[in-house]
Amino acid sequence: MHAIVLNATLKQSPEQSSTEALAGVVSNELEARGVTTETLRLADQDIRPGVVSEAVSEGDAWPAIHSKLLAADILIMASPTWLGQPSSECRRALERMDAMLSEADNDGVPVAYNKVAGIVITGNEDGAHAGVATIAQALIDIGYTVPAQAWTYWNKGPGPGDEVYLNTSEKEWTDGQAAACAQNVHAVAVALAANPIPKPPNA
Amino acid sequence: MHAIVLNATLKQSPEQSSTEALAGVVSNELEARGVTTETLRLADQDIRPGVVSEAVSEGDAWPAIHSKLLAADILIMASPTWLGQPSSECRRALERMDAMLSEADNDGVPVAYNKVAGIVITGNEDGAHAGVATIAQALIDIGYTVPAQAWTYWNKGPGPGDEVYLNTSEKEWTDGQAAACAQNVHAVAVALAANPIPKPPNA
Amino acid sequence: MHAIVLNATLKQSPEQSSTEALAGVVSNELEARGVTTETLRLADQDIRPGVVSEAVSEGDAWPAIHSKLLAADILIMASPTWLGQPSSECRRALERMDAMLSEADNDGVPVAYNKVAGIVITGNEDGAHAGVATIAQALIDIGYTVPAQAWTYWNKGPGPGDEVYLNTSEKEWTDGQAAACAQNVHAVAVALAANPIPKPPNA
Amino acid sequence: MHAIVLNATLKQSPEQSSTEALAGVVSNELEARGVTTETLRLADQDIRPGVVSEAVSEGDAWPAIHSKLLAADILIMASPTWLGQPSSECRRALERMDAMLSEADNDGVPVAYNKVAGIVITGNEDGAHAGVATIAQALIDIGYTVPAQAWTYWNKGPGPGDEVYLNTSEKEWTDGQAAACAQNVHAVAVALAANPIPKPPNA
Repeated sequence: MHAIVLNATLKQSPEQSSTEALAGVVSNELEARGVTTETLRLADQDIRPGVVSEAVSEGDAWPAIHSKLLAADILIMASPTWLGQPSSECRRALERMDAMLSEADNDGVPVAYNKVAGIVITGNEDGAHAGVATIAQALIDIGYTVPAQAWTYWNKGPGPGDEVYLNTSEKEWTDGQAAACAQNVHAVAVALAANPIPKPPNA
Repeated sequence: MHAIVLNATLKQSPEQSSTEALAGVVSNELEARGVTTETLRLADQDIRPGVVSEAVSEGDAWPAIHSKLLAADILIMASPTWLGQPSSECRRALERMDAMLSEADNDGVPVAYNKVAGIVITGNEDGAHAGVATIAQALIDIGYTVPAQAWTYWNKGPGPGDEVYLNTSEKEWTDGQAAACAQNVHAVAVALAANPIPKPPNA
Repeated sequence: MHAIVLNATLKQSPEQSSTEALAGVVSNELEARGVTTETLRLADQDIRPGVVSEAVSEGDAWPAIHSKLLAADILIMASPTWLGQPSSECRRALERMDAMLSEADNDGVPVAYNKVAGIVITGNEDGAHAGVATIAQALIDIGYTVPAQAWTYWNKGPGPGDEVYLNTSEKEWTDGQAAACAQNVHAVAVALAANPIPKPPNA
Repeated sequence: MHAIVLNATLKQSPEQSSTEALAGVVSNELEARGVTTETLRLADQDIRPGVVSEAVSEGDAWPAIHSKLLAADILIMASPTWLGQPSSECRRALERMDAMLSEADNDGVPVAYNKVAGIVITGNEDGAHAGVATIAQALIDIGYTVPAQAWTYWNKGPGPGDEVYLNTSEKEWTDGQAAACAQNVHAVAVALAANPIPKPPNA
């Protein structure tokens, strides 16, 4: 079983990312369950705006990411929030994934069916529930299954400040929830591998 | 396997409800797969505001609905939209379900784990995606799993008008999607019955 | 100039409400600017579900609240969050306000035009931005103007705990933002009183 | 008085954009009121991800757009929806505008105060209310005032199809609402020019 983690931070490597740090807790828990994982930082990639899986123009990084999505049983979408909403990197990836709505395997089963998704949100400030709502809706739309409590988040209380996930000492609830997220996406991926969703009756 | 359909229309019985009509398409498809179903119109019930499963005050209809939720493998949440958002009846039920976050069986498994949810939205006007987002987020939070494309909706184009799901002739996409919703919630409920999600590692 | 504050807590009086406490900071700041204020706790009222301004059935408390809304220049909508979303009391009030979309004065100006709204959100947990988004959208839809930064909120960091606005010592940012909210709704109400929005060109 | 229209379509010029066509109805109505307008297609610009007003790296198009935002009294944010949500181009612009939160004039008034915003959403499918909610929340956060009904949208009913704003014959409600949007952003901009919001009391 294989998982891909898309880190939608706005920061390019090697700058440290709180989102990656928290997504890493989920990855570690997945690996402890025998799942191989790969983390991709979207801001390091040159992803062109569009709604197709093919390259929009020369040098477009999306087709390679699309292949990685197809090869993974589990997707962890990890995003920071700005102004209380997920990042443009997160949005751009979901937009490109719109094309997967009309892609199916040889049996007519949409490519995202029987894949499972989890969500990680970090922020300086409030916005996690809003992010889970819009990301979950988009992923379910595309054909992913989102399991029970398959998310975790961290932010501090209201207003500005320097505290972020990377430098806080209050991670207990968040990291515990990351473990639950990993367990639940893995458990549902195992369940769907044994008993898959068939192609849509209206396909 | 058993499903409960909560119809969050603002209209009391016996007034006709577009939401119930479209939820009925999902119910029929579930029954065709051997699932027994019960539909409950929330506006017919005296549900008091609160966040507990027990009666808030004498005559509170919620405890009986809570029992029905516990007895069902599948929940279909069906809501109209007003001002582009799900109804207060939908919101009130979700609020009461907040208590299920801290209810678990004898093995420590949260009561909503391994239950599966689908979503039905009807409206005169735009608002379906917004409704799916907030309802899915709340149900996943509580412990439901939301399968691939486990929703359907109907509304017409922008602006006022008399056309609703009950009187439109353009139901083809919506009803086809209702069949997919039913198939997918059933398939995932079957998969989770065979391979259930265990209790959270942080429980 | 007059303001009405709708407190959408689920708790009936005289139980203490964090939402009312924070809304009270906004009210005090409005009164310091010469605005009279009235606070109404929605859970104390028997508001029936519906989308009309008239009584839905005997004993319906809405018509009196509707009159208060019409008499106020400023509306402060104050709501707790549950599962990261505003309360069913908030939603019910907005739903009833849907009728105001088609109510106009003798000159054809919709009744909510030139009224100004602010938003207050409290919660144990994350959800403030999501609440501001859906409440602002609904109020703008109805015809209210929402000024710059006309909101404030309080919640603590992720996960459960006993800390709420009423018992926290960290109110500085939140109360400062409440003062800005009050100033800005007042300033825009003054501006619109001097230079009102006319009736819609398509009316 | 001057307005800037940001068209967040994913299509580069000279490809036709439904979003630009509908935003153009708002622009024409603004010009009929003596407002000068400029429309900028974000996908034609090389806007780097970030949350600062200064160039993130060489060639970053944002600083020039930031200057145009500062020079405009009115902002019209126009976005298509994909998967029921505004585009990544829209999100990226809002993210960069996050920096405006801490920018103020010599008197300490935040730069977006007394600027007014309207919203235009187009889509093949449902998602307009969701887009208005998240865009309005972000713009109010930054310091824009969003007037009564300062939006318009177009989409068709549920499901796929070739009909878009550019080729539909059913534009009457949408274009009438575009005229109301233009009138109302203009009226509130005039009102705020005469009676501006002062700097925040907590600044």
